[in-house]
Amino acid sequence: MNENLVDRCVAIVGLGLMGGSYAKALKRRGVKRILAFDADQRTLENGLADGCVDEIYTTGGTVLRDAALIIFCTPAAVMCRFIKANAAHFSPHVVITDIAGIKGNLAVAVKPYLGDGMDFVAGHPMAGCDGQGYGRSRADIFDGANYILIPTPDNKGENIDAIAAMAKDLGCARVACVTAAEHDRLIAYTSNLPHVLATALINCEAMDEATKYFIAGSFRDGTRVANINAPLWRDLLLSNRENVLHEITAFQQTLGHFAKLLEAKDGARLKAFLEEASRRRRDLLHE
Amino acid sequence: MNENLVDRCVAIVGLGLMGGSYAKALKRRGVKRILAFDADQRTLENGLADGCVDEIYTTGGTVLRDAALIIFCTPAAVMCRFIKANAAHFSPHVVITDIAGIKGNLAVAVKPYLGDGMDFVAGHPMAGCDGQGYGRSRADIFDGANYILIPTPDNKGENIDAIAAMAKDLGCARVACVTAAEHDRLIAYTSNLPHVLATALINCEAMDEATKYFIAGSFRDGTRVANINAPLWRDLLLSNRENVLHEITAFQQTLGHFAKLLEAKDGARLKAFLEEASRRRRDLLHE
Repeated sequence: MNENLVDRCVAIVGLGLMGGSYAKALKRRGVKRILAFDADQRTLENGLADGCVDEIYTTGGTVLRDAALIIFCTPAAVMCRFIKANAAHFSPHVVITDIAGIKGNLAVAVKPYLGDGMDFVAGHPMAGCDGQGYGRSRADIFDGANYILIPTPDNKGENIDAIAAMAKDLGCARVACVTAAEHDRLIAYTSNLPHVLATALINCEAMDEATKYFIAGSFRDGTRVANINAPLWRDLLLSNRENVLHEITAFQQTLGHFAKLLEAKDGARLKAFLEEASRRRRDLLHE
Repeated sequence: MNENLVDRCVAIVGLGLMGGSYAKALKRRGVKRILAFDADQRTLENGLADGCVDEIYTTGGTVLRDAALIIFCTPAAVMCRFIKANAAHFSPHVVITDIAGIKGNLAVAVKPYLGDGMDFVAGHPMAGCDGQGYGRSRADIFDGANYILIPTPDNKGENIDAIAAMAKDLGCARVACVTAAEHDRLIAYTSNLPHVLATALINCEAMDEATKYFIAGSFRDGTRVANINAPLWRDLLLSNRENVLHEITAFQQTLGHFAKLLEAKDGARLKAFLEEASRRRRDLLHE
């Protein structure tokens, strides 16, 4: 695939929050022909009306041959089924990428269906938005974000470069490459755990009618992502279960340590704990 | 105190993030004369240069007699010392308010120092901002926020009304009245706990150099308030220790319940847990 996407045909499978955001960001960048595939006709028509996609299809088909790049913005299982059913229509040199939040053995799983010249380069942006569906999609979610690639030894260098170039085209600031195992371990802490904490916080028994007047920024921020796509996140957390359980345990230990200091009225160590958190958070601001 | 603040003199003690925000919001509303008291001369000069305060003082003194309203934006202990040292200078009918995050017996503690006509009406906005200091202050932190009042049977009705009117002047949307005990119990969940979770999340052992590329919105939002004023929050959490420990325990139980479902691969209950969180968070959006 040529690195210059503008004149190539791009297919996006799954026009939800993320797929819609890819379409809008790529169209903003000037990509001339974007094909959208989604089971929901109305979603597709909304995308067409917004001008962020050029052709819409409720199922795969021979038109896929025109796509130099196929971006899957569906659950991993849907992607595997789509590839199995449609790989025969793909361009012999197509580059395929995904945004699955957990990588596991995904690259291995799809390989048997792909022709020799076809290349699956796994990745995803460290970007998103609360809620779900095309209506929540925005071109600017990529702006300044990091983009993660999970290349395998099978991937062609030029195709890895092409996906990295696409990330920059979307508006991402940096591209980082890691192995699938490392990816899933890191993401358990930086993304899975914050989502779990947000849902647990708002699901506490203290949440009731009387509390709403007492809610300010810290609670709103701490629970923003609790407005979650439940079936998607159930599958995602189950697929990264070991890593997520490890991070929950580590978090419980840190929180338990804090509670012990508070129980013991250990002002000096409480202050040190809070200062360390403050220092780490300020470091993040400079990233 | 007359409900119309514009023509009255207002004193703000402590010109930090919150005190500065009060000054800016009240000046935006047109309050003509604002006195600022702060131990830091440079902070005071910044406030004067910004035009949000009209007179600056590094210590209390007889000028306090001009103030119809005194707003304390200092730690509770500093407020008590200031009142003890300066109550003799206060106007005989002064209304005093504070923004202490935990109320406890504060109203009882300051009462012995106040003349019969003086009235301390405890309260605070459910508003704030990460970081600390005058440089972080903004007039708009009050916009649309809730304001909490903790009146006692000793407070004059007209003075409670005056503080409620001030809250509206600041830009707050709603005013709610509760007892000090109820306040501290509720705030342990809606504010103290989210701050504790944010600091514990960023203090986990998994936080290191490699993680930074994997940080997206959920982690940034979940740790925003970890950039915390450590000595202030140490004191605040210690002063609400029993309630905070209760909420930490309740949270650990909720999180532990979630971990058990994940451990057991109980997809149906995991989905129900996430759906409940999502429903609760969407309800908040409509508040």
